[in-house]
Amino acid sequence: LKDTKIESKIIGFDLDRTKAETVLSMGAIDKLADDVAHCVEQADLVIVAVPVMVIKEVLIEIASHLKPESVVMDVGSTKKLVCQWAEQFLPQHTAFIGGHPMIGKESTAIEAADKSLFRGHHFITTPDTKTNEQAIALAKQLIKALGMKEKPMTPNHQDILVTWASDLPFIVATCLLLAASKRSSWQDTKIISSKGFYDTTRLASGSPPMYTDICLSNRESIINAIALLITELKAAQRLILHQDAKGIMSLFSAAKNKRDEWLSDVWQGKM
Amino acid sequence: LKDTKIESKIIGFDLDRTKAETVLSMGAIDKLADDVAHCVEQADLVIVAVPVMVIKEVLIEIASHLKPESVVMDVGSTKKLVCQWAEQFLPQHTAFIGGHPMIGKESTAIEAADKSLFRGHHFITTPDTKTNEQAIALAKQLIKALGMKEKPMTPNHQDILVTWASDLPFIVATCLLLAASKRSSWQDTKIISSKGFYDTTRLASGSPPMYTDICLSNRESIINAIALLITELKAAQRLILHQDAKGIMSLFSAAKNKRDEWLSDVWQGKM
Repeated sequence: LKDTKIESKIIGFDLDRTKAETVLSMGAIDKLADDVAHCVEQADLVIVAVPVMVIKEVLIEIASHLKPESVVMDVGSTKKLVCQWAEQFLPQHTAFIGGHPMIGKESTAIEAADKSLFRGHHFITTPDTKTNEQAIALAKQLIKALGMKEKPMTPNHQDILVTWASDLPFIVATCLLLAASKRSSWQDTKIISSKGFYDTTRLASGSPPMYTDICLSNRESIINAIALLITELKAAQRLILHQDAKGIMSLFSAAKNKRDEWLSDVWQGKM
Repeated sequence: LKDTKIESKIIGFDLDRTKAETVLSMGAIDKLADDVAHCVEQADLVIVAVPVMVIKEVLIEIASHLKPESVVMDVGSTKKLVCQWAEQFLPQHTAFIGGHPMIGKESTAIEAADKSLFRGHHFITTPDTKTNEQAIALAKQLIKALGMKEKPMTPNHQDILVTWASDLPFIVATCLLLAASKRSSWQDTKIISSKGFYDTTRLASGSPPMYTDICLSNRESIINAIALLITELKAAQRLILHQDAKGIMSLFSAAKNKRDEWLSDVWQGKM
């Protein structure tokens, strides 16, 4: 945020003081607050960037310290539950807008921070009927400054999209890793594995607490998606069992076509 | 191969004449043969690089044209079946050694050929009791010249390893893509999807005929691996259903640890 042209002062707070001081020394914030209350009491815009299930506590904690007309935004992966909490706990004189920048890295270390990560990607917002013009304008300004593309939608729709684009891929990567690593062949699998295994399992190196919160907060949608994936796996398994070369070929071709179409749209700038 | 210091003449043949001529004009081969018989009749080493299920036909076709003492190697993904065919169809006066370079690209176009693809990766060989010294030495020379690391093993063991390192990741990528693309949310999933979805589904853009042959030739092992993956997915699904935060956390941590251990071994050059 410091690199954008928005004139602002950024006050930061983190429960982990050492982490917070690293961020300060990196110049990513201007000032370190002693507690959450001090951090938010003068803020026009409060950005809550904590694991999804912790957002509830933070909203409760900041509620009585927010100044009138301030705007609160979260950047958690799940939106339906978070928007319900905001509705429930934030005072009427403030505005809330759910936010979810569609970027990520396996590493959550401060040292892995990378401002180029944002540019060109989508930033989902979930304004509700009570999100005022001012909050929307502020969010737009922020998203533009980060070089990201705003994509407004309902919290429910966002939770389904994120399930398919991110949560299920993580679970798939994790389960593939677990299944492979439980075999006696694992030692040699590791030796011969190359880019295919690396890429397909990359997300499994993501933060366990972050993804635990995501699974708890986006539960139904994820459970449903796992079931649909298992259906596909069983269909593939059945075709292979029956040596149905034609069926296998058409299954693989369908997936390849869908993916190649997607990439072609991305390359043509349609996305 | 042309870049290596092995003094040799490379004669190529492909059913697709245009493709073969492109390869010739790229300088990757010295001469184009008119048919398979002419291609192999003077060769010391014959490399069969065709989809797995076509290897059988090729072995049958070349069998009577091979000169005494010649060595035949294939580079197909599956080895148990291929070694059985070699045993069955190749004459006694030749030697066979199964080979599988552990590299790959989604694209199978000639234009995607990339000699740097090989360096540093493993090249699995499956010599059997009848593979003579000469064949092993020739294979070693070839693998070294490509900058690859030889990893000899039994055909059965190689088929299991490849299932986990490559075949199952492909099927997972394909099924994830299919499940996601069948939803009404697909249009928007495509828009917001970023590197996580891209990487986890990358293999789904692989060649459908190549993977169809892989599934047919490595059938039992793949069916078994899909079943084991489904077991993991169901376990994750159950934990999420029961909101078992501790269980979810320990599942995700186990996968992360296994993957990070693997990467750390790779970085330390232990692999």
